[in-house]
Amino acid sequence: MAKAKAAVLVAPRQIELEEFPIPETGAEDGLLRVEATGVCGSDVAPYHGEAMGDLFKLPLILGHEIVGRVERLGKRAAERWGLKEGDRIIVEEHIPCGHCEHCYTGRHRMCIKMRYGSLSTTLAPSLWGGYADYVYLHPNAVIYKVADDVPAEQVPLFIPISNGLYWVQKSGGARTGDTVVIQGPGQHGLGCVIGAKECGAHKIIVTGLSQDTERLRLARELGATHTIMADQEDVVERVKEITEGRMADVVLDVTPGATRPVEMALDLARVGATIVLAGFKHFQPVTSFASDKMFFKELTVKGVWGRDPRSVEVALRLIESNKYPLHKLCTHTFSVAGTEQALKTVAGEGDKNAVHVSITPDHI
Amino acid sequence: MAKAKAAVLVAPRQIELEEFPIPETGAEDGLLRVEATGVCGSDVAPYHGEAMGDLFKLPLILGHEIVGRVERLGKRAAERWGLKEGDRIIVEEHIPCGHCEHCYTGRHRMCIKMRYGSLSTTLAPSLWGGYADYVYLHPNAVIYKVADDVPAEQVPLFIPISNGLYWVQKSGGARTGDTVVIQGPGQHGLGCVIGAKECGAHKIIVTGLSQDTERLRLARELGATHTIMADQEDVVERVKEITEGRMADVVLDVTPGATRPVEMALDLARVGATIVLAGFKHFQPVTSFASDKMFFKELTVKGVWGRDPRSVEVALRLIESNKYPLHKLCTHTFSVAGTEQALKTVAGEGDKNAVHVSITPDHI
Amino acid sequence: MAKAKAAVLVAPRQIELEEFPIPETGAEDGLLRVEATGVCGSDVAPYHGEAMGDLFKLPLILGHEIVGRVERLGKRAAERWGLKEGDRIIVEEHIPCGHCEHCYTGRHRMCIKMRYGSLSTTLAPSLWGGYADYVYLHPNAVIYKVADDVPAEQVPLFIPISNGLYWVQKSGGARTGDTVVIQGPGQHGLGCVIGAKECGAHKIIVTGLSQDTERLRLARELGATHTIMADQEDVVERVKEITEGRMADVVLDVTPGATRPVEMALDLARVGATIVLAGFKHFQPVTSFASDKMFFKELTVKGVWGRDPRSVEVALRLIESNKYPLHKLCTHTFSVAGTEQALKTVAGEGDKNAVHVSITPDHI
Amino acid sequence: MAKAKAAVLVAPRQIELEEFPIPETGAEDGLLRVEATGVCGSDVAPYHGEAMGDLFKLPLILGHEIVGRVERLGKRAAERWGLKEGDRIIVEEHIPCGHCEHCYTGRHRMCIKMRYGSLSTTLAPSLWGGYADYVYLHPNAVIYKVADDVPAEQVPLFIPISNGLYWVQKSGGARTGDTVVIQGPGQHGLGCVIGAKECGAHKIIVTGLSQDTERLRLARELGATHTIMADQEDVVERVKEITEGRMADVVLDVTPGATRPVEMALDLARVGATIVLAGFKHFQPVTSFASDKMFFKELTVKGVWGRDPRSVEVALRLIESNKYPLHKLCTHTFSVAGTEQALKTVAGEGDKNAVHVSITPDHI
Repeated sequence: MAKAKAAVLVAPRQIELEEFPIPETGAEDGLLRVEATGVCGSDVAPYHGEAMGDLFKLPLILGHEIVGRVERLGKRAAERWGLKEGDRIIVEEHIPCGHCEHCYTGRHRMCIKMRYGSLSTTLAPSLWGGYADYVYLHPNAVIYKVADDVPAEQVPLFIPISNGLYWVQKSGGARTGDTVVIQGPGQHGLGCVIGAKECGAHKIIVTGLSQDTERLRLARELGATHTIMADQEDVVERVKEITEGRMADVVLDVTPGATRPVEMALDLARVGATIVLAGFKHFQPVTSFASDKMFFKELTVKGVWGRDPRSVEVALRLIESNKYPLHKLCTHTFSVAGTEQALKTVAGEGDKNAVHVSITPDHI
Repeated sequence: MAKAKAAVLVAPRQIELEEFPIPETGAEDGLLRVEATGVCGSDVAPYHGEAMGDLFKLPLILGHEIVGRVERLGKRAAERWGLKEGDRIIVEEHIPCGHCEHCYTGRHRMCIKMRYGSLSTTLAPSLWGGYADYVYLHPNAVIYKVADDVPAEQVPLFIPISNGLYWVQKSGGARTGDTVVIQGPGQHGLGCVIGAKECGAHKIIVTGLSQDTERLRLARELGATHTIMADQEDVVERVKEITEGRMADVVLDVTPGATRPVEMALDLARVGATIVLAGFKHFQPVTSFASDKMFFKELTVKGVWGRDPRSVEVALRLIESNKYPLHKLCTHTFSVAGTEQALKTVAGEGDKNAVHVSITPDHI
Repeated sequence: MAKAKAAVLVAPRQIELEEFPIPETGAEDGLLRVEATGVCGSDVAPYHGEAMGDLFKLPLILGHEIVGRVERLGKRAAERWGLKEGDRIIVEEHIPCGHCEHCYTGRHRMCIKMRYGSLSTTLAPSLWGGYADYVYLHPNAVIYKVADDVPAEQVPLFIPISNGLYWVQKSGGARTGDTVVIQGPGQHGLGCVIGAKECGAHKIIVTGLSQDTERLRLARELGATHTIMADQEDVVERVKEITEGRMADVVLDVTPGATRPVEMALDLARVGATIVLAGFKHFQPVTSFASDKMFFKELTVKGVWGRDPRSVEVALRLIESNKYPLHKLCTHTFSVAGTEQALKTVAGEGDKNAVHVSITPDHI
Repeated sequence: MAKAKAAVLVAPRQIELEEFPIPETGAEDGLLRVEATGVCGSDVAPYHGEAMGDLFKLPLILGHEIVGRVERLGKRAAERWGLKEGDRIIVEEHIPCGHCEHCYTGRHRMCIKMRYGSLSTTLAPSLWGGYADYVYLHPNAVIYKVADDVPAEQVPLFIPISNGLYWVQKSGGARTGDTVVIQGPGQHGLGCVIGAKECGAHKIIVTGLSQDTERLRLARELGATHTIMADQEDVVERVKEITEGRMADVVLDVTPGATRPVEMALDLARVGATIVLAGFKHFQPVTSFASDKMFFKELTVKGVWGRDPRSVEVALRLIESNKYPLHKLCTHTFSVAGTEQALKTVAGEGDKNAVHVSITPDHI
């Protein structure tokens, strides 16, 4: 293990395979042998060279949905994390500083001065991203154990599933018997289906486009009671029919790029409903946001960024339980060398039926 | 008291003075001798003939911010409300049915199938609006007592003050030490200043326009720590300065008609902040709503419709306490015959410095 | 239908079968032909002559878990409730006044000046209780429709099930993945099992006594993952084992009479947990309440009284769905003439395995 | 500054003055020159030798309400805390690990594996308590700046004041117009008076004993509207009178040792009220806790442990503002050599009128 191979984004749309020395580690830190890293839709923006503030510093190794085995572990790190070498873990994307307002108030997920998949390789020890053979375990890394017998490429699904649990149940406040409308059948939309199913929502309605036939089928298999093709049907009318005029208790927007679903959410919501916004619009503003509907119906709209620790734990337990046919969501796996193709697939430039895409190092 | 005089809206921008017979009342209902009725900004829309769904049914007597004396009271009504003839009361605008989902869930303020100031005079006994000598007390009316010694025209301020308490403290969740930004220095903006002052907000920032000099001065007198003229200063920069970069914990939009403040609220809010929307935009949509900021900062936006009963009680106690110089907010009083002029004043077609405008029957 | 038969509690432990004239009804009210009325544990106190403040006024017809068919319905009543004669409905126990603080704040369940099963037969039209052939439908009655094909004796289970949904999910805040401990395997404990199961609790632990073997078996059948016999096992130790030291996120006490479970709840709860108290102790105080544990673990203890309207609707839909084997909970059915025996059974003086007991009029 | 003097608890009720070498510090940590340390009521338990689990490890330097000047500061520590040498700061008692469930969920105040005022002097570098000339600034210390011109002995009042803000407003949910009953007029009770005053409570009622005459006078000076001597008056009756039967929206117990106030809180609370428990009972259980009142009135009881970071900041700003006559609360100041006498005073073995007691090193 003299060297670690990694896919480095050196310029927009330019990824090069490089080798890095395996880092030295001490008492406080460790090293992860990557088993799989999920490709997140948010990786497409830096790949395309979109400005994202200071978040992505090139050259860098993308990839922050990481599962692997503890290869090396310091003594203090072992105590801190309750781990030993060989344990199978997932690593959260944020590396919280522990001292800022976010960290002090239970919002450490928003402390992203340091973050896996966005730090430059020029910052020692370079291995900060998941599209690589190894990842450096920083002393502040947030780590959870996961069972040995889950196929590696399914484990990164803890992110859409934990987000789905958190967004539907905690942010949206969904309760048993509710109607939940989920706009967008991507991996996060499917995670929300699980979030809604788990809390006993009676009607789970997922919207997509004609091209999403396969994703919408998967949504139904996971628990959606109804699916709507937004480019062929009148979504508001359909939801009115399905709910006998009651409309939705919780509406989620997890569509990437489209702003129309945010506008439509105000019509899909019933009095007192909660709308959860999690779909990144690449800074395009919503151009027809009928704010008057918000007070005529006393609506609440919440922006959400990630999940709480409890949701991650519960998502991992759900994955381990085999309750859902998650293998059907894992549509594509690429090697580290195939990172560029993986990103293109997630960007919609490849197989239109892709749901969850992973990078798996050759040593797996 | 053979007849009750009232200002009847018979067609858009056409108000006629009519006389109605004083209604018979029985065991369950009563009659109110009006002392004053506040002119609400929301009365301008029906006066202008704007479509408001089924809410306003012409011909009608507008006016729903009503204070008066109990003139006649049935036996059962007296028990139900704990009142006797001669008591001074305010009457809430909504007349809740008591049997719908809103009524069953503590949201009876949204049960407006019947509502003072919006029912037609063709519905017996006609006296459903405050711009009149008398108002019919329906068995389902929601009533609160108020002290005898408050000047009549100040009492309708219970509405902006109770809304201010509710929107800032309950909807916005403001706590001692917070920064509260209030966009719009009208009577509701000033009510929000009181709401923010009462819960110990450390920085209370009110925005307005150049024409609002007098209203902004009043805001400072009530407790605002800073005021900003949005047409002369960069509001976001000023709030950044005032808060040393921290930005606002709670942002309220109580501007009528303008949509820019809704957009700007996303920039004024700090991470985790709550934005409260209460300014009616006459169905004009917001055209540049940067929803991405909502999840980058985990913002919550709430539409609010009115207040809870507790806020009304507390507002009445505050008015009675003389803690605030409320007489300065009562800039204009008109007779019932002057209703049209009163509505024009509130619509901005008269004195630009108007804050709170009331109609006072001649018998006062 | 000249007369309605009813079981009247004329003195403690003394029930007499009486006949009452069928009441006249008008535009505003109606009459219910009873199909079944559940026997609530709280009916035992008045039967035993326990002082309950002003709540129970003898002579009275007990019974407030009522299902039946609309026999007669006034025109206005039909509009108000959206009903027609022949419809199958349940009637809530409270008859809210619509004008008090409880009614105005969404807590109408606590407005019990008038209440089915506790008003005296001396108050016209006498038929205020469910242990009878007919029940008077007061204009303020709170009514929900239920499907025709559910066996009558199962319908009153909407009470423990809606309470269970509300107490576990809304009061307790249980979320997917949580551990929920339910102390007491009676019908309310079993309702809580359903409440916990529906929101995806991962560990549902029910405690009982040796005599509860059959009830604990039912609990497991409904979804409990573990059951504990509190008189044979160390409950705290067992929960520690089951949860690997994590303890419970939500603890409920639904034991009637016993105070030890309230004390123990403090030990069963993990840091930050919520404890929900719903078990009536007949005014016996808890004698060893270790309040220090409450702040060492930042616990919240909530007393709960009934449920919200949404939970009732959802419970009815769950009952109609046949998802749970509810017929197994319906262990005993008596005629109106058998009311005394029914009350003794619920009081534990009969079959020890009784769970849900109903009174069914002879006309069924 | 070769040596630091400190008061060391070597055995129950046995404090010895010792000298410790001034610790070496590096890039990550620092050293504080103590100006004053408040004596907390909770220090009495270890002084008396009460078992407190693993919390207090003798020999130790007590004292965790610490204010001082940064004497020495590493480069990384300076960046992390935004501090420079010479800055005046307060140090929170907890030294959070940053990696446990408490730390990850915004409850780092409960991560007390390391804690100022409870670590043994055998753990290098010994200076872990405030009753000393210097205190070691651990890399994980939680630090807030405070203005230079506040008298040192007033600064530790940030603890009762921030607790009061948090307990009354956040835990208790008090809003403008509420009635708040505070049982116990010690420094925490007085902090709660400020918490209630700041959020606009209309009735602030403080209970104490005959011996608390001076403390109750102080309570009124800070904003209490009523005070009650619980050994001379019927507290429940008095609160009923004062509130005209409405009773309290929020009840706090901040009495040390007494369990009767916890029982009485159930009677003082109105329907739907919140009771906040913060008074340590030295593990004595409450012996007559009438749990039935909890559901008849739908009460919520919350145990609270400390405060959130925001409350600390706001408390410091309030102290700096000179809004309250806090010097009157600072009744006693002792030197490090007088630590034993200070503890006895707080334990009630000295001046009965003591409110806030501080230790001030000789170098001040």
